[in-house]
Amino acid sequence: MKTLEEKILREGTVLPGNILKVGSFLNHQLDVDFLMEMGKEIARLFKEDKPTKILTVETSGIAVAMGAAAEMHIPVVFAKKHKSGNLSGEMYKTVVHSYTHGTDYTVVVESQFLSTDDRILIVDDFLANGKAILGLVDIVNQAGATLVGASCAIEKGFQKGGDELRGMGIKVESLAIVESMDDNTLTFRK
Amino acid sequence: MKTLEEKILREGTVLPGNILKVGSFLNHQLDVDFLMEMGKEIARLFKEDKPTKILTVETSGIAVAMGAAAEMHIPVVFAKKHKSGNLSGEMYKTVVHSYTHGTDYTVVVESQFLSTDDRILIVDDFLANGKAILGLVDIVNQAGATLVGASCAIEKGFQKGGDELRGMGIKVESLAIVESMDDNTLTFRK
Repeated sequence: MKTLEEKILREGTVLPGNILKVGSFLNHQLDVDFLMEMGKEIARLFKEDKPTKILTVETSGIAVAMGAAAEMHIPVVFAKKHKSGNLSGEMYKTVVHSYTHGTDYTVVVESQFLSTDDRILIVDDFLANGKAILGLVDIVNQAGATLVGASCAIEKGFQKGGDELRGMGIKVESLAIVESMDDNTLTFRK
Repeated sequence: MKTLEEKILREGTVLPGNILKVGSFLNHQLDVDFLMEMGKEIARLFKEDKPTKILTVETSGIAVAMGAAAEMHIPVVFAKKHKSGNLSGEMYKTVVHSYTHGTDYTVVVESQFLSTDDRILIVDDFLANGKAILGLVDIVNQAGATLVGASCAIEKGFQKGGDELRGMGIKVESLAIVESMDDNTLTFRK
């Protein structure tokens, strides 16, 4: 998505540890009009796959998921990162390693919100090592739902997650794939 | 908002400790089409106040904020609940007491995302004791921005937060105000 690449070049900053900071529109401030445009693009990429529900994980995935869901008129379920007082009943659980924070965390989804009839599109903000998306794939499998694919706003193509998921036969569509980045230059995959 | 009241009656459940569980559309699964309708109502209620930005707090506030922001074509800033590896630079901070979890937590907003020119509308999913919104009001004040008001999806009218905020002269518009609830009945403020 050309407009996303341009926005990353204009507003993004690279921090030590391969962190691409896009807090001005995706991770802290949300450029909602732009997120709705990104959602339209995700809807276009997965139209033929007829998803019935989007699965994401809190927090930053929610805004991207909502943009896509608004265009497709389907619900979002967001996995929660720890057991909350407001969760009850049967849950699917999986453990995810966070690249950004260097820790493991458990994500949970109440089982009532995923059914064997669902065709799930996984959406997230970033795809780097792919651990968050693999965790969501595990939850889709636990639910016996059908996975139609995964879409993320920004993929770090120099990390292995996206290509590993594709190697598993999963349809992965990233709106922008960063091929390399350092303090001075940032290039995208053609 | 009559349709929200009906949805709460149809899908909500009351748990011990005055918890109203609306995970099917607001806190775990997101009924995105309905959230966009709620957003239109918030936009209508605050049209005259000309907000330039919506301020909310992760996680569940984001979806409500996005619905309103999509209708008003303004950005959202979501306060973060703990210092993340992706935050840097100057920050506004405040401490909030969580009614649901029984703990205090710090919320932060990078100062670059709020300016003295901004007219801030605070949006959240729930309003009970009002501590989260008071924390966001504190951040708006730290930034020297103008507060135009606060809107939440569901106010627990039998707790004091909403009326305290109104008593401070803040325009508070809740889409549904629960006057009383127990296991068997749930009534709304007229």
